[in-house]
Amino acid sequence: MKLFYTPEIAQDKTFTLSESESKHAIRVLRLKEKDTITLINGKGSFFDATISDANPKKCTVQITTIRTENKAKPYLHIAIAPTKNNDRTEWMIEKCTEIGINEITPTLCKHSERKKIKQERFEKTAISAMKQSLKASLPIVNELTNFNTVVNAAFKGKKYIAHCYKNKQQHFKDIYLKGENCMILIGPEGDFSEQEVELALKNGFVPITFGESRLRTETAGIFACTTFNLLNE
Amino acid sequence: MKLFYTPEIAQDKTFTLSESESKHAIRVLRLKEKDTITLINGKGSFFDATISDANPKKCTVQITTIRTENKAKPYLHIAIAPTKNNDRTEWMIEKCTEIGINEITPTLCKHSERKKIKQERFEKTAISAMKQSLKASLPIVNELTNFNTVVNAAFKGKKYIAHCYKNKQQHFKDIYLKGENCMILIGPEGDFSEQEVELALKNGFVPITFGESRLRTETAGIFACTTFNLLNE
Repeated sequence: MKLFYTPEIAQDKTFTLSESESKHAIRVLRLKEKDTITLINGKGSFFDATISDANPKKCTVQITTIRTENKAKPYLHIAIAPTKNNDRTEWMIEKCTEIGINEITPTLCKHSERKKIKQERFEKTAISAMKQSLKASLPIVNELTNFNTVVNAAFKGKKYIAHCYKNKQQHFKDIYLKGENCMILIGPEGDFSEQEVELALKNGFVPITFGESRLRTETAGIFACTTFNLLNE
Repeated sequence: MKLFYTPEIAQDKTFTLSESESKHAIRVLRLKEKDTITLINGKGSFFDATISDANPKKCTVQITTIRTENKAKPYLHIAIAPTKNNDRTEWMIEKCTEIGINEITPTLCKHSERKKIKQERFEKTAISAMKQSLKASLPIVNELTNFNTVVNAAFKGKKYIAHCYKNKQQHFKDIYLKGENCMILIGPEGDFSEQEVELALKNGFVPITFGESRLRTETAGIFACTTFNLLNE
């Protein structure tokens, strides 16, 4: 099943693909009239469609069925320090999109070595991972945001901060309740500063650990996402 | 804590680092006599030591304490098809080493696109991930092995095969019992062939799934490793 990401699609009976998607469908995949394709809107809906005009610049399709993604899962938002090496963050975004996540906020922390990100590239990574894993929901990938803004923002759900200071924090798997929306803060290689941890606790974040292994930032991101999805399976 | 990987270390009181490790310690890290370092043997032991001769070609240390890694976990062996793009397999080896794994067997399957691997590079990846995550155990990274050899090999523990054929296989997390040694087979992008699945079942492998998301090969590897470690936490 080849998916086309068409965020602007409405509930109409016909739809015309963008020039680049039309070219991809007709010139690259050599699709023809009456061939079937599936469009996704990034918001959880699949639109099965039949090509009615195989125009390589504006391919038009007739929508035959609209399907929505299975069961509603609780919301997962991971706010995470971008890694020094961009590839590691991109790779984490790809993996989390495959496994299941709703929102990612690259977070600028006191010990962050990287102070700039390419949000557009991160978004492209998420789009291609969504298509590749046959999902119809695109995670929100936010712009780089200051730690203070992140911890002060409203969030409807439980909030956690994963840090490495020895405070006997509980394992995420033992404290998270199935079905809860959840936001998880993950720090840079040098960990959050003590002031950052304090500020998070004041704002209702609960300290957690992911076990005894010392994980890299991006590994902690995937570990958190996997655990959340397992507990909600 | 800076770790030096010295697989040849014995239970003696003194030890001389290899030429390259000596250079790294003395020339790069500029360590001096009486500085303390930690050696790891890749088999679960840490050797705390004090430098007695800061020779940049043969640095000699006195062992002060020998510590072993915390609690014994059950054995995890993942046999997995190498990805077309080598980087993806290397990433997976790095992440699994951080999270915790004992053995990885790159497995040549019928639908494998990649028929050669660089085992030495995979091993280097594992060594550097072990050091980076402050572990003392190095996973075994085997040579590329034929699927038939892998499924016929003896294994003391439960054996699982993750495939995508619709057979109502149970989720790994619901079938695996905490504490059991376990071997998990993970196929290439085009999945195992039906004959391969049959052969595995005949050899006592139990079919499993990792949930509804369609995961890339390397993502399934990390997902399996994370689940195993979570369930044994």
